Amino acid sequence: MKIEEGSWVRLERGGKIYEGTLLPGATDHLVIKLSNGYNIGLKKDRVKILESREVEKAENAQQYEYHRDSSLPNLVILSTGGTIACRVDYRTGAVTSQFTASEILQAIPELEKIANFDAEVVYNILSENMQVSYWIELARRVYEKIKDGAEGIIITHGTDTLGFTAAALAFMVRTPVPIVLVGSQRSADRPSSDNVMNALAAAKVATSDIAEVVCVMHGSTSDDLCLIHRGVKVRKMHTSRRDAFRSINVNPIGKVSYPDLKIEIEESHTKRGEVALALYDGLEERVALVKFYPGADPEILDFYRERGYRGVVIEGTGLGHTSSTWFDAIGHLIDAGVIVVMTSQCLYGRVCDRVYDTGRDLLKLGVIEGEDMLPEVALIKLMWLLNREKDPDKIKDMMKTNIVGEITDSTDVIGGF
Amino acid sequence: MKIEEGSWVRLERGGKIYEGTLLPGATDHLVIKLSNGYNIGLKKDRVKILESREVEKAENAQQYEYHRDSSLPNLVILSTGGTIACRVDYRTGAVTSQFTASEILQAIPELEKIANFDAEVVYNILSENMQVSYWIELARRVYEKIKDGAEGIIITHGTDTLGFTAAALAFMVRTPVPIVLVGSQRSADRPSSDNVMNALAAAKVATSDIAEVVCVMHGSTSDDLCLIHRGVKVRKMHTSRRDAFRSINVNPIGKVSYPDLKIEIEESHTKRGEVALALYDGLEERVALVKFYPGADPEILDFYRERGYRGVVIEGTGLGHTSSTWFDAIGHLIDAGVIVVMTSQCLYGRVCDRVYDTGRDLLKLGVIEGEDMLPEVALIKLMWLLNREKDPDKIKDMMKTNIVGEITDSTDVIGGF
Repeated sequence: MKIEEGSWVRLERGGKIYEGTLLPGATDHLVIKLSNGYNIGLKKDRVKILESREVEKAENAQQYEYHRDSSLPNLVILSTGGTIACRVDYRTGAVTSQFTASEILQAIPELEKIANFDAEVVYNILSENMQVSYWIELARRVYEKIKDGAEGIIITHGTDTLGFTAAALAFMVRTPVPIVLVGSQRSADRPSSDNVMNALAAAKVATSDIAEVVCVMHGSTSDDLCLIHRGVKVRKMHTSRRDAFRSINVNPIGKVSYPDLKIEIEESHTKRGEVALALYDGLEERVALVKFYPGADPEILDFYRERGYRGVVIEGTGLGHTSSTWFDAIGHLIDAGVIVVMTSQCLYGRVCDRVYDTGRDLLKLGVIEGEDMLPEVALIKLMWLLNREKDPDKIKDMMKTNIVGEITDSTDVIGGF
Repeated sequence: MKIEEGSWVRLERGGKIYEGTLLPGATDHLVIKLSNGYNIGLKKDRVKILESREVEKAENAQQYEYHRDSSLPNLVILSTGGTIACRVDYRTGAVTSQFTASEILQAIPELEKIANFDAEVVYNILSENMQVSYWIELARRVYEKIKDGAEGIIITHGTDTLGFTAAALAFMVRTPVPIVLVGSQRSADRPSSDNVMNALAAAKVATSDIAEVVCVMHGSTSDDLCLIHRGVKVRKMHTSRRDAFRSINVNPIGKVSYPDLKIEIEESHTKRGEVALALYDGLEERVALVKFYPGADPEILDFYRERGYRGVVIEGTGLGHTSSTWFDAIGHLIDAGVIVVMTSQCLYGRVCDRVYDTGRDLLKLGVIEGEDMLPEVALIKLMWLLNREKDPDKIKDMMKTNIVGEITDSTDVIGGF
């Protein structure tokens, strides 16, 4: 049975009955707004629809007219799914099947004062299903939109892997305009939703002078500010809090106050137009991230070597260590031509393998220090370098050289830690 | 050539000449205090000793007399190595070959006002070389010392894996007295060393009413307080800062002000004598911790299944997710009788797999939610449960049930995040 979004439905899954309004959801899901106000997502192929009927749509859903204002900048919204995307249009009660500019503006009319928008659905996935090949396709899409005149890009994204995608885009696209990733930790139907505020702040940043890949999300537990995080230095550090995203080993570039949407810049950044648009698309998939812990079997490294992996990023302890029981397997990886990069599971701080003999032994084996890069960012950087460069020495050099802000000079004083 | 500790030496390694005083070091290392004040650790088998001579020892090294005071509690110090242990006796200029109570008191005479001490070297390793079997042996030693009348235990430990060892001890020893792990991030010869302050605060906590496994370390960048972290909720979150250790998903139990060493309790804890001494030694080593990331090959799970692993802890994204490309391999693990526990790479917050379909699919496969446990703590808890329990259903139940403070009821408001 095909039912239209916005319809009232009654359905059954696993013996349980659900009733509510069908919201636009992921392609393989039905998202139902239950009468208690909560949304539930159910896989289409497991659901039996018992009953449905069309309901009268909210009046403004039909009447909304979107006026472009030639004095405002032109932004492009690319949606990839996640909590922010599938419910962005809920606030007004309007339910839509696609994600067009006018539908977004219906949901968040305040956006219209900031810019003109074009919108496009690139993916409609939960971000834990993000894949390396999707990053490449998304980078190409971003590149095309900027080439076609977008003065700023907003990417709506699930929060689970938003930081990974930000890093991937940062390495693949050199941008003369802002590329802003934004998500939400709570859906729009919850009173505590960060949806609207994050979207408005992201739009504001997309019109700003910050020509980098950044992530804009709540910066506190109040609705008073969003932080602007550099895409290669940001990490989701809490499962559920709205201020889950943190800049690691740097201060945020700045903040956006709310509701006045004033941007306050606190750190230096690449300026609009400073860098020419360029696409360096491509990532080597045979790169692994391996976490070390006491008792961890070094054979896991053989596993990757035998499978023809070209790079391994280790999340070591402290300054960047593993047990000496791992040295042989690390040596074998390096002998086989695999690039091995050391990062720290502390997350904060810098790898330094010159202090203790363990570290010096690792350096002697040929392990590359990942400086103050996040393990995830080192993973993506190595994927990117291995796709672009042939010469292993050049790859090793570049791993330790800052390219787009992923390595900083000093991590001594960080407000965030 | 055998040279005595405290001697002046000149030696060569890899073509480079080093001169300085031989400090007591790790069994397989020579630790030399160079004339510039820095220490360097060199592997014995790579070093050629060119010259050595005995030097006059600091006067107090010979004269120190340690008086036991029957009005003070009796503590036992167990040393396992790391930065705090190998240089704890440096401050007075005395250089010793063993780690006895009087040598510790020589280095930090203020300790004598807090308690009477017995001391024992259990290991002399860098903590990245800590092994699962060492945890078991250490638990037995702690148990014996308490059984023999110790009113508190201090364990000096390298910081790299201090949190892991704290969790292992917490599961293996039920204690009527404090068990305090302490380390230092900077060695004693550096002006910014946290050595003395951490040791004094640890001793004070070891005489306190907090009968739990705790970690006592610097709580700020100033020398004004140490924090008392619950052993199952603490993590090293910075590679080099003195306040690297953080309580995750709980507030610290309390703090110790410095230099007055006043303990301020802020959270509830198990009281001295409340729990009877008991040893539950033993850990199943075939348990793995696997981090999920976009592009991660699910075959890594097959690797562990084929090797007969009995448990796998996944560091998922967000609320506890993996890509759906991992579902088959997770199902195969569970079908093979492997216990699979989900934790979050966010570190902060709680796993909840009932919100999104991804999570519900994982629950349906039989994945156990790790609640608000750190991935490392879930790993050690699963090692411990698999060694003690036969019934898989009981293991699964206990993974989700708080035993020694590793799971808390609510993580909504945490000062530390």
